[in-house]
Amino acid sequence: MSNRPAHQLRPIKIKRHYTRPSPGSVLYQSGGTTVLCTASVAKDVPPWMKGQGRGWITAEYNMLPGSTSPRKQRERGGKVDGRTTEIQRLIGRSLRAIVDLDQLGERSLTVDCDVLEADGGTRTASITGAFIALVDALRSVQKELPDPKRLPLTDSIAAISVGIVNGQPTLDLDYAQDFAAAVDMNIVMTGNGRFVEIQGTGEEATFSDSQLAAMLKLAKSGIAQLKEIQHQALGKAWPF
Amino acid sequence: MSNRPAHQLRPIKIKRHYTRPSPGSVLYQSGGTTVLCTASVAKDVPPWMKGQGRGWITAEYNMLPGSTSPRKQRERGGKVDGRTTEIQRLIGRSLRAIVDLDQLGERSLTVDCDVLEADGGTRTASITGAFIALVDALRSVQKELPDPKRLPLTDSIAAISVGIVNGQPTLDLDYAQDFAAAVDMNIVMTGNGRFVEIQGTGEEATFSDSQLAAMLKLAKSGIAQLKEIQHQALGKAWPF
Amino acid sequence: MSNRPAHQLRPIKIKRHYTRPSPGSVLYQSGGTTVLCTASVAKDVPPWMKGQGRGWITAEYNMLPGSTSPRKQRERGGKVDGRTTEIQRLIGRSLRAIVDLDQLGERSLTVDCDVLEADGGTRTASITGAFIALVDALRSVQKELPDPKRLPLTDSIAAISVGIVNGQPTLDLDYAQDFAAAVDMNIVMTGNGRFVEIQGTGEEATFSDSQLAAMLKLAKSGIAQLKEIQHQALGKAWPF
Amino acid sequence: MSNRPAHQLRPIKIKRHYTRPSPGSVLYQSGGTTVLCTASVAKDVPPWMKGQGRGWITAEYNMLPGSTSPRKQRERGGKVDGRTTEIQRLIGRSLRAIVDLDQLGERSLTVDCDVLEADGGTRTASITGAFIALVDALRSVQKELPDPKRLPLTDSIAAISVGIVNGQPTLDLDYAQDFAAAVDMNIVMTGNGRFVEIQGTGEEATFSDSQLAAMLKLAKSGIAQLKEIQHQALGKAWPF
Amino acid sequence: MSNRPAHQLRPIKIKRHYTRPSPGSVLYQSGGTTVLCTASVAKDVPPWMKGQGRGWITAEYNMLPGSTSPRKQRERGGKVDGRTTEIQRLIGRSLRAIVDLDQLGERSLTVDCDVLEADGGTRTASITGAFIALVDALRSVQKELPDPKRLPLTDSIAAISVGIVNGQPTLDLDYAQDFAAAVDMNIVMTGNGRFVEIQGTGEEATFSDSQLAAMLKLAKSGIAQLKEIQHQALGKAWPF
Amino acid sequence: MSNRPAHQLRPIKIKRHYTRPSPGSVLYQSGGTTVLCTASVAKDVPPWMKGQGRGWITAEYNMLPGSTSPRKQRERGGKVDGRTTEIQRLIGRSLRAIVDLDQLGERSLTVDCDVLEADGGTRTASITGAFIALVDALRSVQKELPDPKRLPLTDSIAAISVGIVNGQPTLDLDYAQDFAAAVDMNIVMTGNGRFVEIQGTGEEATFSDSQLAAMLKLAKSGIAQLKEIQHQALGKAWPF
Repeated sequence: MSNRPAHQLRPIKIKRHYTRPSPGSVLYQSGGTTVLCTASVAKDVPPWMKGQGRGWITAEYNMLPGSTSPRKQRERGGKVDGRTTEIQRLIGRSLRAIVDLDQLGERSLTVDCDVLEADGGTRTASITGAFIALVDALRSVQKELPDPKRLPLTDSIAAISVGIVNGQPTLDLDYAQDFAAAVDMNIVMTGNGRFVEIQGTGEEATFSDSQLAAMLKLAKSGIAQLKEIQHQALGKAWPF
Repeated sequence: MSNRPAHQLRPIKIKRHYTRPSPGSVLYQSGGTTVLCTASVAKDVPPWMKGQGRGWITAEYNMLPGSTSPRKQRERGGKVDGRTTEIQRLIGRSLRAIVDLDQLGERSLTVDCDVLEADGGTRTASITGAFIALVDALRSVQKELPDPKRLPLTDSIAAISVGIVNGQPTLDLDYAQDFAAAVDMNIVMTGNGRFVEIQGTGEEATFSDSQLAAMLKLAKSGIAQLKEIQHQALGKAWPF
Repeated sequence: MSNRPAHQLRPIKIKRHYTRPSPGSVLYQSGGTTVLCTASVAKDVPPWMKGQGRGWITAEYNMLPGSTSPRKQRERGGKVDGRTTEIQRLIGRSLRAIVDLDQLGERSLTVDCDVLEADGGTRTASITGAFIALVDALRSVQKELPDPKRLPLTDSIAAISVGIVNGQPTLDLDYAQDFAAAVDMNIVMTGNGRFVEIQGTGEEATFSDSQLAAMLKLAKSGIAQLKEIQHQALGKAWPF
Repeated sequence: MSNRPAHQLRPIKIKRHYTRPSPGSVLYQSGGTTVLCTASVAKDVPPWMKGQGRGWITAEYNMLPGSTSPRKQRERGGKVDGRTTEIQRLIGRSLRAIVDLDQLGERSLTVDCDVLEADGGTRTASITGAFIALVDALRSVQKELPDPKRLPLTDSIAAISVGIVNGQPTLDLDYAQDFAAAVDMNIVMTGNGRFVEIQGTGEEATFSDSQLAAMLKLAKSGIAQLKEIQHQALGKAWPF
Repeated sequence: MSNRPAHQLRPIKIKRHYTRPSPGSVLYQSGGTTVLCTASVAKDVPPWMKGQGRGWITAEYNMLPGSTSPRKQRERGGKVDGRTTEIQRLIGRSLRAIVDLDQLGERSLTVDCDVLEADGGTRTASITGAFIALVDALRSVQKELPDPKRLPLTDSIAAISVGIVNGQPTLDLDYAQDFAAAVDMNIVMTGNGRFVEIQGTGEEATFSDSQLAAMLKLAKSGIAQLKEIQHQALGKAWPF
Repeated sequence: MSNRPAHQLRPIKIKRHYTRPSPGSVLYQSGGTTVLCTASVAKDVPPWMKGQGRGWITAEYNMLPGSTSPRKQRERGGKVDGRTTEIQRLIGRSLRAIVDLDQLGERSLTVDCDVLEADGGTRTASITGAFIALVDALRSVQKELPDPKRLPLTDSIAAISVGIVNGQPTLDLDYAQDFAAAVDMNIVMTGNGRFVEIQGTGEEATFSDSQLAAMLKLAKSGIAQLKEIQHQALGKAWPF
């Protein structure tokens, strides 16, 4: 298990424009976890949104078979498993929370988060990386948007995990820590420090008020750092 | 929309032994929401648990087609939708948090939560009702358990929703309130006041620290009342 | 096994308006069998019927997991099993036989028969209860029908099982009787005493002309009683 | 539409040993309907029958895409449709009614009825042809049966349709007659004149006692003729 | 295993108009392999081709359960297996190679190849038989085609297998030869001697340049004979 | 479209050990096509191979949604499409042709080829990259093999596409060339110059003997170069 201090993030590397076919394409690495986030834009919306002039954002999440040891079976049998469904719904909701869908026009953005290596925190890495891919994808169609002078974003967004490991509140759990954690929490926050999602689960365990407070505090400091890292990665493309 | 005070639960009715085939069978009504919770016991466990001497608890959630207006399509096409999957995983985790699985022996409990009428809060009603069905199902096999002198329960459990509706923290959202809410949170807590799950979601919105605190406070008071109502329904069968 | 006389129906209880979201909602209990029949109306028809000005009626049948002991697995795997398919097709055909589809306008009625407790005769209970739910659902849209002065019904309908148990023709088989029966027959008849369906099956057995005649006689007397019970339950809503 | 007299069967042709891989292989033609019935034997039984020393018989029914005009879509989408399911369950039950499963040993017979040309009456042709294929398949393993001196058959079996067409009771409906029929009935009977199945359906219509009696009388005369035709086709292989 | 000379085709029998509902219906037998090829015509095209004035040809391939010993399981589970998919794509591409789709108008031809008996070479028999069924189906709509004076065919087409069996290049492998073959090759050629498909596979083996040349030579001589046999079967209907 | 000479390969980059969880992990880039090939080893074999002491190799192929523009839909609906099935069967057969399965012991190797960027030739890139991943995966278990002194490989393997573009035989088609090609051929050959697979398809076109000869010649020269590139990438790990 990691011997990082309990309040420290794992080292992060970000490569923008990692692949060519998608306008947003970010390779996001956090310790032993690597996610390829690609963002695509299409000029249509789901049937239930047609004619409203608004856009939509959806996300898909997938772990490549070689991303774990032993190999993970491919999800092709017609049933997307429950964990996958939960994660991709979470990513989608998180991104929609900071996008002004009215300013997208009738466009769909799809963000695909394909995990190349999994060592814990794949859903939070997906959200943090997806924001960067989203910015690049929005920039690729900026000129065609209702208001081409600004990107239709109200805030930035990032996510981090936090938990109680060996009785201690701990930031950014790797796989071994996650496995050992009594409580596991994922926090999605905006760059301005507002909550988008809190998902805390006692894994056959429970937690107290004070433990909750300690975890939230750690998470906020982690999110603040992630915002800086996103800002650096985007450089002049940072939209605020 | 309801004109209950924002801190008040909807009226609750509970019928135990509602149907005969399952040892636990509870009709749980909260306002316009009615859930039939049945708990069954089988003398085996999933393949990955065999030979460990421990038990397992799993839950399934379903809305009957006539539970909503317009009619809800039956989930038979081979894809259980994402929302259903999330809810039944939540119910299962919540129940496992307060059961001593080692004291079950190699038994599987399955709790089925079938929604007969849906008016918001079906997942929290399912958990609160499922606890009662679980107690009755455990009592039906108590004599065969490793320790027949006590039920293998470490605490009771209940759940409630809370949200921000028209800017105001509000307890126990009905469908109209849930639809109007900017933030929607489901809290699962034990009778002793410890958290099992916190799931808070800004629906294309965000929330602040103080809003989070206000919602948690409301939820705690609601859970305390639900514990009393569960206690009354179980009467002498209350296991603590 | 029951010690009813072989020509006597099991006791029946009927609750109309059992749940609120559907215009027709009937809890139908016959001995240890309980079916919730809900009837919904939608203002469209299947694609192959569009533009003809006629309506359509379809039915779905389902057993809740807790309706049997041991628990019945939920049909979610994408394959609706053969027995379920047969039963819901039978219910739909039976209802269509007494409805004047031309007088419905382009409307679809869906009748859902969800079995809460199963002790034999679930398909015949479904049909008998569904007729009552159908009447209530039709009344809820009566004012909008092509001819608002009358309901578009040509007759009432009910169904009962009959069989050869221990060599004796027997009415209204419960589960134990059905299991023991050499021949199992389901009869659907109108209130005016005309046949809609006869489905008789030797279960790895055969039956003679005289046995057939004896079973048909029993069934007719049972159906006549069911018509009276339906009439009482509907009271002034009885449409003839 | 056919101008046969209403009480006359369509002309029938039977080819045994039509294909080589299956021990029973019968091409059964009745008017414009052609079914290839093949019967295979395997030395195992379904899991729920293991260790009982008994055998099992199951049937599958399928219409080839070119058997109808316009072409019928192939059932490959994972959902076997309701009609197909009903028919293959009917064929299986009918055959099991005249086989002594105890005398099969732990063997499974599978009878496949693949319709090459469809002009009404495919299910009854399947049963009548399947009996012949079954006899040939049983003969191929006769020496290995518990009692090799006789085939494990208690009777022969055949099936025919009957209906009310233009108000007249009519035997052996072709497609045009079936389409026009107000009532449609399929009768499965043994060579000794006992009923195995009666399935009568008013197609959005109803029928009276006397109509039922007239249809049953026609069916019996048709079944008696079919028995003679089966006997001729089997020649010395006729097992009684 | 066959004792044919290695360069000789198996005996071939062809029956046109084998069944009535489809305009093209050919029973094609090659040794112990029998395929029923039916060709249907519909007056529409797939959505992605609408409005172009061109037609389309597609093929489906299926082995009947009784076509092999032991019985082959029916492909109904929602997954068409890989081998089936490959074969039906091959048949479709082969036929499209010699049809002038522009001269079809907006029509779809579907060719169904249902294997009644399988003894090797079912895919090549399917193609060779399908060509004849295709000609008959095209003739049935010839008067409605853009140019009714000629069939929209640029060439004939046939297919044959060839392989290395016991070190020797061998034509037209039956099942036993195919099983023993180190290399297995299917060749699709036009009547004018041009290649449409070459699919050669070392089955856990490899092959040299000279072996390839020998196999191609054998295949060409086989295809030339098949063309003559097709010509005879079609007689005056031969379109060139 | 590319202005490479028609006989020249696209530039190739290979990174071994690209991800950590799988023992073989190769990022293979050829022009605008990038495939991640990961090879995993498990200590079991499919049921039909148990107890034979032999191993097995299987492959899966997948295109990531962001690998094409417009985005490619994820294959999750329960139907793996025909093209995917064909490709992954081809990769598996190709690898098995050069592995001595008897010397693997009862082990399964799974090679996953996930396409990150698609610009033509993804199946041939998958095979060429998979060989390198396979060598690394075999080396990771070499000590446990029946003969730990050598890898169980009989030859190397690589694959390349070739076609007729604008009438000219052309090596290594990119997407634009493939789209324009009248004939498209994929050749799999061993390092020693023996064929494993030839798959040549006239896309609604045909080809002559001399065109076939020209394409085979180009393919051989391409494969020879690929062997050198594989050798360099593996360096001392080259197994021959």
